[in-house]
Amino acid sequence: MNDGGGKAPASRCHGTAGAVLVVAGTHGNELNAPWMLETWRHNPDLLDAAGLQLELVVGNPEARAVCRRYLERDLNRSFIPELLENPARKEREVVRARQLLDLHGPGGPSPCLVAIDLHSTTAAMGNCLVVYGRRPADLALAAGLQGALGLPIYLHEGDATQTGYLVESWPCGLVVEVGPVPQGVLSAPIGRQTQLALETTLTVLASARRGDLRLPPQLVVHAHLGSIDLPRREDGSAEAVLHPLRQHRDWQQIHPGDPLFQAADGSTISYQPPKGIDHQPVWAVFINEAAYGEKGIALSLTRRDALPVEPAWASALEALARQLLPRGGPL
Amino acid sequence: MNDGGGKAPASRCHGTAGAVLVVAGTHGNELNAPWMLETWRHNPDLLDAAGLQLELVVGNPEARAVCRRYLERDLNRSFIPELLENPARKEREVVRARQLLDLHGPGGPSPCLVAIDLHSTTAAMGNCLVVYGRRPADLALAAGLQGALGLPIYLHEGDATQTGYLVESWPCGLVVEVGPVPQGVLSAPIGRQTQLALETTLTVLASARRGDLRLPPQLVVHAHLGSIDLPRREDGSAEAVLHPLRQHRDWQQIHPGDPLFQAADGSTISYQPPKGIDHQPVWAVFINEAAYGEKGIALSLTRRDALPVEPAWASALEALARQLLPRGGPL
Repeated sequence: MNDGGGKAPASRCHGTAGAVLVVAGTHGNELNAPWMLETWRHNPDLLDAAGLQLELVVGNPEARAVCRRYLERDLNRSFIPELLENPARKEREVVRARQLLDLHGPGGPSPCLVAIDLHSTTAAMGNCLVVYGRRPADLALAAGLQGALGLPIYLHEGDATQTGYLVESWPCGLVVEVGPVPQGVLSAPIGRQTQLALETTLTVLASARRGDLRLPPQLVVHAHLGSIDLPRREDGSAEAVLHPLRQHRDWQQIHPGDPLFQAADGSTISYQPPKGIDHQPVWAVFINEAAYGEKGIALSLTRRDALPVEPAWASALEALARQLLPRGGPL
Repeated sequence: MNDGGGKAPASRCHGTAGAVLVVAGTHGNELNAPWMLETWRHNPDLLDAAGLQLELVVGNPEARAVCRRYLERDLNRSFIPELLENPARKEREVVRARQLLDLHGPGGPSPCLVAIDLHSTTAAMGNCLVVYGRRPADLALAAGLQGALGLPIYLHEGDATQTGYLVESWPCGLVVEVGPVPQGVLSAPIGRQTQLALETTLTVLASARRGDLRLPPQLVVHAHLGSIDLPRREDGSAEAVLHPLRQHRDWQQIHPGDPLFQAADGSTISYQPPKGIDHQPVWAVFINEAAYGEKGIALSLTRRDALPVEPAWASALEALARQLLPRGGPL
């Protein structure tokens, strides 16, 4: 279980004031959040920051300039302490991760305490959140958002093959994912959903800062269980693709025997629970996300859990949020 | 008007036998046609070649290996005689274009007389054809396909900013476009539509070869009139995006005053006919195709024309098709 080990602890920044880091374009071919960010820079009145000081940052401007997810390695898998501390590692995304931390880490010249990382996906995830591990402040923020908007939450944990996410390097943070939208495509509704999730996040943070945070009694999460790749031939080529009846069915349950893949001859390969997952009910997420092909992920499986919201979560978020700078406030 | 000037004339290859060139992955991030091609290579029985000899080729294997449209320049804008004949031009796609022509041009060691180039798009073009200019054999082939399947046809001509398409370098050829599908995403229905269009093309060619080609009395085309870019700021950034009411409305008519773009503040920018197009009825195609952002194309405008099918078209296709090799036939 990845329950926060190796991550920035919330306690590190007690006493250090800071802004909210809003990152768009951590992946350079996800265009909608960077487009929104550009419009907010041109016209700050278009974003309701709930009175909080923001740092608006394009995550990977070099990759965005060429509309590619990344240049040398996935920036959103590069926030790994051992990697960042190794001076021999000079990939452009490793350099960029160090830059972002040096500048906007809690000890940097433009310190931030919370990181909101805005993504889009080709999967039909709708407007949703991804939370990494179970840091109390993250769970409180997610609960506040779910209470306000009902957004579904993918709780990514216990996955040793996928680590080094940006938001884990700040004391509190989460990812907003909106889809489906193709890579490289600008879409007004995707931008609008992104803005709604961001503004609501800021509203929850402002409420925690004022001390009037109200959270729902429970937080429904879809906790990561594992991922499934396409069936492949010995040469690595795909022997089948996602079954049409599975496409765009994110957040829906899969049962043993349900259609999962379709081979080139039209035959169906049905879902059988992989080892370790057995016959427990599972819900699918990130179905046929374009960027996950290279990661060997055709879809991920989750378990739906309703977690009682603990008072300690709100306390952790409030302690952090009290250090958030007001908009236009002094650094 | 681009009516075939500079293209491979059908007459050049009279007397030269050849195969049908089937190209997939001319753009390396359009995965579905290459995936189908791979399955046909593994299991030739899965494709009905209508008795014709095929050459199955991945257009840009280097770009496909990294899931990018191209590496140095768009391969499907590189079949320009002056470019290919200039030894100083060594971009990888220029080299690849020369390779394909050297190997599969009508005079090459594996000669082909017809080129079918299989593409996909993020626009909701459905299953459709793109024909470049008005070569009689191309129009006959398109008419045969439209008669069989009713596919809509984008007649690309008179566009000096977009030239050098692969199929123009063979005596006869057309593009199959299927969408919407995001770049980098495998989709069984997109693959199936691609196969249907290809198999029907081969059936029409086989019919022309046998001399029993039957064409409908007219060919409905959507002839290119011009393209419109997003409204942009001085720094080149997009000031507005496609209006949600325009998204996925390919092949539909646009009238002056219809919503076209949406600015970041939610305001609507409506369609006004650009210069030269005036108030004639227009139909939109390739709406919000991801790859056309860099080309400054948010959508293209066409005029719907019903062309009487001329006897000379069928004669041109039959003369060419008589030279097509039977499957497994000697070169």
